[in-house]
Amino acid sequence: MKTLTKEQKEYLLSKIRNVPDFPKPGIMFKDITTLLKDSEAFSFLIDHLFEYYKDKDLDFVAGIESRGFIFGAALADRLKKGFVPIRKKGKLPYTTISEKYALEYGFDEVEIHIDAFECEKENPNVLLIDDLIATGGTAKASINLINKSGANCKDACFIVDLTFLNGTKELDKNTEIYSVLEI
Amino acid sequence: MKTLTKEQKEYLLSKIRNVPDFPKPGIMFKDITTLLKDSEAFSFLIDHLFEYYKDKDLDFVAGIESRGFIFGAALADRLKKGFVPIRKKGKLPYTTISEKYALEYGFDEVEIHIDAFECEKENPNVLLIDDLIATGGTAKASINLINKSGANCKDACFIVDLTFLNGTKELDKNTEIYSVLEI
Repeated sequence: MKTLTKEQKEYLLSKIRNVPDFPKPGIMFKDITTLLKDSEAFSFLIDHLFEYYKDKDLDFVAGIESRGFIFGAALADRLKKGFVPIRKKGKLPYTTISEKYALEYGFDEVEIHIDAFECEKENPNVLLIDDLIATGGTAKASINLINKSGANCKDACFIVDLTFLNGTKELDKNTEIYSVLEI
Repeated sequence: MKTLTKEQKEYLLSKIRNVPDFPKPGIMFKDITTLLKDSEAFSFLIDHLFEYYKDKDLDFVAGIESRGFIFGAALADRLKKGFVPIRKKGKLPYTTISEKYALEYGFDEVEIHIDAFECEKENPNVLLIDDLIATGGTAKASINLINKSGANCKDACFIVDLTFLNGTKELDKNTEIYSVLEI
């Protein structure tokens, strides 16, 4: 599996905008919209993800609401796999299963449809994708959801990994993690 | 521009699940997750959109949060164009412009980054995409936002058009509308 060179990583990182004090004071937000609007950078990233995952035994790509939908849907289309949205509580119309995760104060909850991964194959393999991993709460809950729903979260991919927060260390050890860019 | 045959439309419509009483009693929700998870149906739809738009003079694809991100990102990747997210108020980190639209009770608001369509070209052409058009409030506000931000909303595409609500009739006459499936 080919990862990016230092120069390629620097190229992609140069397309991500730093926005200070968003969503609250003291946080330096990684704004990926400047990468997405750049057709060359966006194509370069999706080309890379396609090459990285094309020979893996995957059945579905799942994306976490809502920036994970952007990378997940483009990659699912390239890989010719089905796309499954993981959403915030109350957004999915059919019967769901949900998983709570702790926030700094209180908790939040993600959901998938109970039949999200129903297909001809038993225990299908899923690639989970999100734009960024920080403390890993949403990713951990999403991996648990996928595994609880009769599928196997074989891979998880994050475009940006805030490595100083150690989010990937929290994740299920049976899931293979790939962080494209590390900060 | 080739539209779908009756049989092709029936095939795609058969992949969309009807969920009664969501998000509130009396509403029959069109659940596109059953289409997305079906790799053949999802590929068929994106293939069709690519063929429909590939020879048009487009510079960006803009998707409306959050199901519009799914179709918009996959199509932007196929067309090798930049992708621009149109989001609910407060979600975008950088300086935004916003547009209000009326709901049954009260109003809602969509936003884009002020530099969302900044590029080498003056007044670039944008394709707006969303999964569904009902009364057209969000689509109308999104088209206005695109045009206010120095770009030209040349095209707008909706996967499902609830034609009995006449949503497309409300939209800017300079935007060419394509509804893939009509209900």
